[in-house]
Amino acid sequence: MQPKLKGVTVAVIGGDARFPVLIDELIASGARVNVVGLPVTSSVKGVTLYNNLEGCLVGVQAVILPILGIDEKGLLHCVLSEQTYHMTEQIMALLPGRTFIFTGLAGPLLKQMTSRMNLRLIELMKLDEVAILNAIPSAEGVVQMAMELLPITIHGSLAVVLGFGRTGMTLARLLSAMGANTRVVARKPAALARVAEMNLIPVDINNMLECLAEADVIFNTIPALVLTEEVLGMVSPDTIIFDLASDPGGTDFQAAERLGLKAVLAPSLPGRVAPKTAGRILAQPIIRFLEKKTANS
Amino acid sequence: MQPKLKGVTVAVIGGDARFPVLIDELIASGARVNVVGLPVTSSVKGVTLYNNLEGCLVGVQAVILPILGIDEKGLLHCVLSEQTYHMTEQIMALLPGRTFIFTGLAGPLLKQMTSRMNLRLIELMKLDEVAILNAIPSAEGVVQMAMELLPITIHGSLAVVLGFGRTGMTLARLLSAMGANTRVVARKPAALARVAEMNLIPVDINNMLECLAEADVIFNTIPALVLTEEVLGMVSPDTIIFDLASDPGGTDFQAAERLGLKAVLAPSLPGRVAPKTAGRILAQPIIRFLEKKTANS
Repeated sequence: MQPKLKGVTVAVIGGDARFPVLIDELIASGARVNVVGLPVTSSVKGVTLYNNLEGCLVGVQAVILPILGIDEKGLLHCVLSEQTYHMTEQIMALLPGRTFIFTGLAGPLLKQMTSRMNLRLIELMKLDEVAILNAIPSAEGVVQMAMELLPITIHGSLAVVLGFGRTGMTLARLLSAMGANTRVVARKPAALARVAEMNLIPVDINNMLECLAEADVIFNTIPALVLTEEVLGMVSPDTIIFDLASDPGGTDFQAAERLGLKAVLAPSLPGRVAPKTAGRILAQPIIRFLEKKTANS
Repeated sequence: MQPKLKGVTVAVIGGDARFPVLIDELIASGARVNVVGLPVTSSVKGVTLYNNLEGCLVGVQAVILPILGIDEKGLLHCVLSEQTYHMTEQIMALLPGRTFIFTGLAGPLLKQMTSRMNLRLIELMKLDEVAILNAIPSAEGVVQMAMELLPITIHGSLAVVLGFGRTGMTLARLLSAMGANTRVVARKPAALARVAEMNLIPVDINNMLECLAEADVIFNTIPALVLTEEVLGMVSPDTIIFDLASDPGGTDFQAAERLGLKAVLAPSLPGRVAPKTAGRILAQPIIRFLEKKTANS
């Protein structure tokens, strides 16, 4: 079989523990990879190391930037490198139009730059396929934290999941499979119906106080202030709260502290708890986009 | 309803983090509890604290010793107390004949003492009901360790469980429920049949090499040297091995180290990872024994 990405060269710039895995996957698909700002060695066939962005970008069909892209000054998030690298419009101008620029989520500066240079920006974290698969390491990561902090087993515990989006559904399924009595708080009738279909216990968000008061552990996935001071006042001090919603979460953490409740913000788990799985999850759509491009050219 | 253990007094001597939970359960069942060697307060109704064994034993119908009982010199395993306490035949002689003595596993000295004094020794860890329920925190504890050490999710991993006793069965079920491709190595045809019935993949122990070579993670529960140097030679250096079999486990740890394999001994997990659940598991049979005794008297 012809490798999918034969003849394609990709620049990988900085990034976290997922990125060496991503590079392995690209190499395995037949691509050549130019790397800057990551602790990988050039001993792997197909990998070329650079110490500056300009050299790294020559002749590439795609650029993979860190998940957090660049900050408002163009600084790249190269957490595994001691060097700092800045992306500028001048450097981006080295790329031919329509070159793919992959990142996790793009800030205003990156959006502006890529649009002005006519580059194809793909925000991986906005792709449904990435978000759904990322829910697996997110759910496992927060369950691991719960296991570490709870004096009881997940099996037999009373767990409440707030929200039934991609992460909420995966987490509720995992908890239930592990033997937790799992209640899911949601608003939409269709979501509550799906909860019931999955043999979990649906709770309308307007009636959630009672189930929160009984919970051993509460997981919030709703990106809005749902665990307000008033709601937290109903929660037992033995209960532990984990908030997976994007920073700042859906919990009034200051109120939780005043009330003596243990509440933990648990964002960005995939790259931290399962970098290999999370790297593979990112690789899949990148390879698919580049494969299509190769097939079309 | 009449509390089950009304009129019963129990001495609880030392022990680990499970024991305060055990005391709570006894009190909730209506017993009075005399305590020595544990950091509990006498503010709970029904609890009386002592600083010597003699006082603690007066008028009790049962004595609960630490899980590891006493050592060969009579020293009690009071891991939560700074004081040391010794059990002697003289002290045991204060108890009327047929008094219950509960411990986890008894050594030769405790067996000898209780037999000579005509006391009823119950080894909780030898009770099937305790071993089966303890398999839950054991399995969750080792899965937690696996999550902490593996760079991949349990979901989608290739997991091998060696042995299909009480812990092996619980662990295999948990891994499979979490989405691992779960293979179970066993010897007995009936065990392999049960593995197949549970929709897991049965592997005869005589053919285990191939599945061990492919595994992301291996869990041994067989209390005999199964992971020999020769077998370990087949295992990939990326694979992590957890050994739950009683000390010294079923792994040649020195050979594993020579081969550059990561192998972890993981014994006595219940009390460490889920003391509250594990304390309740111990309380159940104790309360049942004492309830029967009360009903008969």
